[in-house]
Amino acid sequence: MALKVCKFGGTSLASAEQFRKVAQIALADSDRKIVVVSAPGKRNKPDTKVTDMLIAYAEAFLAGQGAEEVQASILERFAGIIEGLELPKDEYDTIARILTARGAGDRSHRARYIDSIKALGEEFSARLLAAFLRKEGHDFIYVDPKEAGLVLSDEPGNAQVLPESYDNLRPLRDSEHRIIFPGFYGYAASGNLVAFPRGGSDITGAILAAAVQADVYENFTDVDNVFAADPRIVDVPAAIHEMTYSEMRELSYAGFSVLHDEALQPAFNAKIPVHIRNTNNPESRGTLISLERNNDELPVVGVAGSSDFCAIFLSKYLMNREKGFGRRLLQIIEEAGLSYEHTPSGIDHISVIIKQSTLTPEIETLVLERIRSELQPDKLIVRRGIALIMIVGDGMTKQIGIAKRATGALADSQVNLEMINQGASENSIMFGIQNDDMNKAIVALHGAFFNKK
Amino acid sequence: MALKVCKFGGTSLASAEQFRKVAQIALADSDRKIVVVSAPGKRNKPDTKVTDMLIAYAEAFLAGQGAEEVQASILERFAGIIEGLELPKDEYDTIARILTARGAGDRSHRARYIDSIKALGEEFSARLLAAFLRKEGHDFIYVDPKEAGLVLSDEPGNAQVLPESYDNLRPLRDSEHRIIFPGFYGYAASGNLVAFPRGGSDITGAILAAAVQADVYENFTDVDNVFAADPRIVDVPAAIHEMTYSEMRELSYAGFSVLHDEALQPAFNAKIPVHIRNTNNPESRGTLISLERNNDELPVVGVAGSSDFCAIFLSKYLMNREKGFGRRLLQIIEEAGLSYEHTPSGIDHISVIIKQSTLTPEIETLVLERIRSELQPDKLIVRRGIALIMIVGDGMTKQIGIAKRATGALADSQVNLEMINQGASENSIMFGIQNDDMNKAIVALHGAFFNKK
Repeated sequence: MALKVCKFGGTSLASAEQFRKVAQIALADSDRKIVVVSAPGKRNKPDTKVTDMLIAYAEAFLAGQGAEEVQASILERFAGIIEGLELPKDEYDTIARILTARGAGDRSHRARYIDSIKALGEEFSARLLAAFLRKEGHDFIYVDPKEAGLVLSDEPGNAQVLPESYDNLRPLRDSEHRIIFPGFYGYAASGNLVAFPRGGSDITGAILAAAVQADVYENFTDVDNVFAADPRIVDVPAAIHEMTYSEMRELSYAGFSVLHDEALQPAFNAKIPVHIRNTNNPESRGTLISLERNNDELPVVGVAGSSDFCAIFLSKYLMNREKGFGRRLLQIIEEAGLSYEHTPSGIDHISVIIKQSTLTPEIETLVLERIRSELQPDKLIVRRGIALIMIVGDGMTKQIGIAKRATGALADSQVNLEMINQGASENSIMFGIQNDDMNKAIVALHGAFFNKK
Repeated sequence: MALKVCKFGGTSLASAEQFRKVAQIALADSDRKIVVVSAPGKRNKPDTKVTDMLIAYAEAFLAGQGAEEVQASILERFAGIIEGLELPKDEYDTIARILTARGAGDRSHRARYIDSIKALGEEFSARLLAAFLRKEGHDFIYVDPKEAGLVLSDEPGNAQVLPESYDNLRPLRDSEHRIIFPGFYGYAASGNLVAFPRGGSDITGAILAAAVQADVYENFTDVDNVFAADPRIVDVPAAIHEMTYSEMRELSYAGFSVLHDEALQPAFNAKIPVHIRNTNNPESRGTLISLERNNDELPVVGVAGSSDFCAIFLSKYLMNREKGFGRRLLQIIEEAGLSYEHTPSGIDHISVIIKQSTLTPEIETLVLERIRSELQPDKLIVRRGIALIMIVGDGMTKQIGIAKRATGALADSQVNLEMINQGASENSIMFGIQNDDMNKAIVALHGAFFNKK
């Protein structure tokens, strides 16, 4: 018997109808022993996520304002779910009581207080799903993260898992009952509830999958699979059914928004395959993310981009003879508190690519002044409005002709290439272009590698 | 009236016949006021350059061996020239006397002694050319670098010009006579003769051109023009008639051996155009190197490559989150005394490209150990046998389609691209490939940009 950990995102639990789909999926495969749930998400575009309502609830208290209205909205969402699932009125009372009690809690530490309230969405989801499954006659229990021993660093809103959690959680593998586990939060050693960064239910699932050494971590969302490019940019992007951890990572970095690769990292580290699936279409193949993939015929699995980078460009005659030049430049960048993405360099030139938003006018003045006085470049300019596009595919740089296809497609679409960076990574090529060309470039690159001729 | 400084290389003065060509060229244009000469070079492949004979002469004395044989060879070379130019026997006697006297000079400082002798080739060339022109009835004088004030740093064999030289040499502009000036050496403030690095006659000419603010610095060699690629690699490389200083510089760096860009730097700095011409074919158009070129139709002016680089490659999860990672890596490289060429980097990867010859086994062990212990990479490997190829052309990166043509040609020639670095420099794209593919790649790139369709 295999062991599966599955996690359902916010849209998968947005309504009673969605809860029923989740229950059906959980029941369809007895290997699905541990189910991690998010807070109810949006039922439709204009809807509000429960987590956002909970944050507003906490902030109303913190601001000393009345919280009745937002409390009513929250309870209304859960009342709808409880009613739709035909659960006893007790469940509603419990939720209302906990919500009120938390709101009246200790407000001396702002972030801690917010964490204690915003985590309730997951707790309530998990309690209601467990109650529903039990009502239907199935042996599922709600497991509290504190009792299970999910110990996190004491950083409200940005907690990190502590290593002992894996040992603490391992026994869940052998639990008599199947388990419903709330995502997004755990407890610090002090006993305080602390939340992961946003999207943290993915992290909870990944940690559980690693702890119990699951055969697969099923991550249920609202898309059939990962696409080769952003559907808001490319009309009908290709479906990707297999990709590797490293491909996922490069794509996330490049602006792919389907998944946060860091959230899945605990599963990747434990070499547990992650299967992205659709709650609303559980028959679809999904996307399996694992250490290696078989599909040799797909050199590129995705194209993604981010805009608004800038380049601090400097040139100096005989720069490459000056030992320590690059190192001193990076030291200035570092001491200004900046992170950089790349440092393409030529014989007399070097650029430092950084996120435009981090180069505030004050930091820019400071950095340029230091560069001028300490490195005495012949030329020093800041170029703005750069987008970085990446094509990603394991081993692609070992295949002849990939760069040809990519640069050919970009030239044919009249995109000027300001930068190319290939070879740093084994599984991506990066192109630097003007912001305005970004969508055109992504369409062109997707066409070059995925359009059937 | 324009003012020209011209310099003739070793093959231009290899024999009496060549001296006559040089005289003819000097006389053909009265603007050629200052003529800088090298020592007689090779007359044919198996021949020996006079400078090499002079070094052997000095080393024979230093080793306490007899120098008669090599002295005889040197004097025989000059005797042939004197005879061919129908100069009086006096000239030979003067040369023989100076050569003997220098050989018997102070040997307490080895490098200084070698400099004092190896510079004689240029001195003799200049004396004989001046004597020949005067004999033919023209107003040329030999000017001694010491009297003219060519003051260099006191680094035998590797002297650098000192700034006061420019002021000292400026009056040559208004000399009543036309001037023959020996290349390759000058004097330290102490009065000692010191030589430039090898190829230093180009430097002397460039300094003089800058000092007298020449309209052009004519550099006479034995080729009709600069070629777009190495003729030993590409069968019939395209002729390049115009290029810019920065193009020249990138090409020199990339392995172009026609000229040492650093030797021409004094002229470049003073914005004096450098005209490469052929002593044996003075009618040919040559190559004009200047600040800007007009030829908008030639996006690329050259293709060159160097082999035997290696890449220290490391990967580490979340590397780009670790502030100072790149800087600390470069510090390790710097503290090991290594220079690096490029540092292509990706999200979790960085490579440092260095000349393979500088990464000795001891340095490699040291560097890898420090990287391992201080940076704790997940993966650390050294890749060897990398060739770096560059295509060079001012403003090429602003033209759409250059990368397409280049990567297309490489793919069509089955060259695998391990690295591409574009955008660091405004006028080059660098490709990293396997050593073994280097010539194939240069042929392919030359074909892509210069072959007439």
